Amino acid sequence: MTSASTVAPSVASAGLNCAVPHTAHDRVVLGHGSGGKLSAQLFRERFLPHFDNPVLRQQGDAAVLTVGNSRLAMSTDTFVVQPLEFPGGNIGMLAVHGTVNDIAMMGAKPLYLTTGFVIEEGLSMDVLDRVIASMAAAAREQGVTIVAGDTKVVERGKGDGLFINTAGIGLLDADFAPSADQAQPDDVILLSGPIGRHGMAIMSAREAIGFDTTITSDTAALWPLVDALRRATDGHVHVLRDPTRGGVASALNEIAAASNTGMMLDEASIPVPHDVLAACEMLGLDPMYVANEGVLVAMVPPEYADAALAALRAHPVGAAAVRIGRVVAQHPRMVVMRTHVGGTRIVDMLPGDQLPRIC
Amino acid sequence: MTSASTVAPSVASAGLNCAVPHTAHDRVVLGHGSGGKLSAQLFRERFLPHFDNPVLRQQGDAAVLTVGNSRLAMSTDTFVVQPLEFPGGNIGMLAVHGTVNDIAMMGAKPLYLTTGFVIEEGLSMDVLDRVIASMAAAAREQGVTIVAGDTKVVERGKGDGLFINTAGIGLLDADFAPSADQAQPDDVILLSGPIGRHGMAIMSAREAIGFDTTITSDTAALWPLVDALRRATDGHVHVLRDPTRGGVASALNEIAAASNTGMMLDEASIPVPHDVLAACEMLGLDPMYVANEGVLVAMVPPEYADAALAALRAHPVGAAAVRIGRVVAQHPRMVVMRTHVGGTRIVDMLPGDQLPRIC
Repeated sequence: MTSASTVAPSVASAGLNCAVPHTAHDRVVLGHGSGGKLSAQLFRERFLPHFDNPVLRQQGDAAVLTVGNSRLAMSTDTFVVQPLEFPGGNIGMLAVHGTVNDIAMMGAKPLYLTTGFVIEEGLSMDVLDRVIASMAAAAREQGVTIVAGDTKVVERGKGDGLFINTAGIGLLDADFAPSADQAQPDDVILLSGPIGRHGMAIMSAREAIGFDTTITSDTAALWPLVDALRRATDGHVHVLRDPTRGGVASALNEIAAASNTGMMLDEASIPVPHDVLAACEMLGLDPMYVANEGVLVAMVPPEYADAALAALRAHPVGAAAVRIGRVVAQHPRMVVMRTHVGGTRIVDMLPGDQLPRIC
Repeated sequence: MTSASTVAPSVASAGLNCAVPHTAHDRVVLGHGSGGKLSAQLFRERFLPHFDNPVLRQQGDAAVLTVGNSRLAMSTDTFVVQPLEFPGGNIGMLAVHGTVNDIAMMGAKPLYLTTGFVIEEGLSMDVLDRVIASMAAAAREQGVTIVAGDTKVVERGKGDGLFINTAGIGLLDADFAPSADQAQPDDVILLSGPIGRHGMAIMSAREAIGFDTTITSDTAALWPLVDALRRATDGHVHVLRDPTRGGVASALNEIAAASNTGMMLDEASIPVPHDVLAACEMLGLDPMYVANEGVLVAMVPPEYADAALAALRAHPVGAAAVRIGRVVAQHPRMVVMRTHVGGTRIVDMLPGDQLPRIC
């Protein structure tokens, strides 16, 4: 079992702008999978040198490909979340949303998914049934078809109930190509809903922690919001990103680095549900670093901001959308926040581990 | 650890045409992942009712899709092989070959792959490096690009070193669509090389078994053979299949069922390496049911058989290609073999477990 106490100390340092020395490992550690700096190091030092190619080097949410006469977005994600079922969803629903959202963030309409199951011997058929039913419903709701699959079973003690991989493709529109390197000074930063729900729902569902309220995951498909944004702005969306592992803070830092711009946020504008805030305070976590699975960040030129915000709010998943700040030319590659008390603080990348196995 | 002795008893019954009663399980068992009848039952009863759609119902090696103006083949496979490194290959090489071969069997040229890694905490970086290097080399050799990836890490004891998912897409040719339901009486059945090497290489690499010789896996990419067959026959290839889990026997049974034809094989013509045969006899296995990862079965009209065979033999991977039998109108949905001793025997689907975790 993963207990919160084993991760809280390192996560509690979130927000400190401490320099982290390069760490050489001769074995893989949990932090290599948590989506933070160690994950980036593993990718850069172990995968990229061998797999290096122009598509992979883009490091977008999904790859952009030309096949025949079509331009496609293609992405994959493996889900190892524990517990398999949690308030607001389960691993199957998450596996659909995760990959269709990565495709949607490229501005592509998700069309087809494949899925690979690794089941630990002894998994209850009832759990499996519920997971599969959720996947099917989540795909159907988006008009996405699951076209191929594969199932492997490993012995007891060689897995952890169920891992699910999904891979997907979507069709790109020639006139619509939001990208992390397209942020421009004066762009308005929009956030489609309250943050921190998915990560804290998972934490609260783990045995050791007893919260008073049940926090439900925000897991949701984001293509409808993307499509609405595209229409409302006539395609003038510079950046789209779903802040999953690493939360809003990590996503904004990645965009600032890719576009060589700065981000100036207004803390008071960022919606954090009361129960998420209370749970974060109890565990020493900063909600800016907690994973979301049904929220997007969009950066749009100021003249399109009102229309974009209205389009987001017109959809149930984006009903609580807000402006949270501006892209600035000052302090490039740095995310800065005006705090509740009137000061400013730097919102850095997480130096170490984030919550493990939340997706 | 998986020992051979736990699977040999049920596998040893391979070839017996025994009726197997429907088995209801309330938990997943190892056999659900082994590619035999239980796997088919799991797919039919648990996945298909929820995911049902015309593409999935085809149950080809890969899905056939139309995206924009292009026709694509898309497939996925997850690899849980143990040990991770074995004579002739490793899990990374296998993960590339497995998925590109599924795409190639549809007659499509494999183009792009995604990959998802689930790493158990503590995996040696040296092993990871070798696996990644092999994947990259296998992809490069085929002109396939790995365009997206994802890495998750699970705690010690929650995984088994490394699981790798690959998903891929390939471009279909409008004039070339081999399919399991296209087998026709009088078609010649070709086999591109000796059988049983992959499965027995894995078995021999597991600790408990000491063979005198080292059997090497046949893992290889098959698109070059498919492309050669297409050219040599002007596209007149009715069926292509790579007999992986379940071996040649299972692949032929599936084709017989899909095309409502019978298969008549000549046992003397089927190449089984001496060391594979010896190892199979020692373990009570039938090489016809042992997995291959670099062999294909092709069914072609008799007038194209010579050209097809010559095309296979012209490539190193198909140098030992042979004719192994004919498609017949008699005994539809049944695979029959003329044995070495002059009799005939029915080559049935495996009733139960096959070798676990060989891919």
